Amino acid sequence: MTATLVAMFKRPEGGDDALDEFMTRYLDEHMPLIEKVPGLRSSVVERVAHHYAGDDIVVITRMEFDDNEALQAGMASDEMRAAGRNLREIAPEMLTLVALDEEPVS
Amino acid sequence: MTATLVAMFKRPEGGDDALDEFMTRYLDEHMPLIEKVPGLRSSVVERVAHHYAGDDIVVITRMEFDDNEALQAGMASDEMRAAGRNLREIAPEMLTLVALDEEPVS
Repeated sequence: MTATLVAMFKRPEGGDDALDEFMTRYLDEHMPLIEKVPGLRSSVVERVAHHYAGDDIVVITRMEFDDNEALQAGMASDEMRAAGRNLREIAPEMLTLVALDEEPVS
Repeated sequence: MTATLVAMFKRPEGGDDALDEFMTRYLDEHMPLIEKVPGLRSSVVERVAHHYAGDDIVVITRMEFDDNEALQAGMASDEMRAAGRNLREIAPEMLTLVALDEEPVS
């Protein structure tokens, strides 16, 4: 199994224009920074098509590493710090970020 | 591509005992109800190992359907309504539920 980071982004304030600007900067600025993080094996960015309940999440991104050790080293890297600085600029108050257990429960 | 529902659960109030009880009832009561939903192809329940930023999410579950039409029919089914009633009992205020676009952005 791989180790997975999941980033979930809430809808920004400012309507559709703000969401469009976030998506553009997320894909053009942020993801290229994420792709430089040592140990990252792959990433998938998915947009929300429909909201049914709870928080108004608009994007969910999964980032895969070989194992927890690689994930933790990636999180501690200068490249991830640069990506984090970028995200605080383009997505203030929008981010939830968690690492998953290596094995699914079911 | 398949159509995907993503359920994200925040940590319940009541400490580790409340989280253990939620996990037990989620896996023993709720997921068997979800597995009865027409059109559901597969599901994966993943627990959070580490929280880095934002909301204190403890479980993320992905539920795959053949396409958006199948997902919407599943959401409108009696079986999903039964699963929803169960969730309001075992996970009040914990759930965020979204459907993803069929194709990833990147």
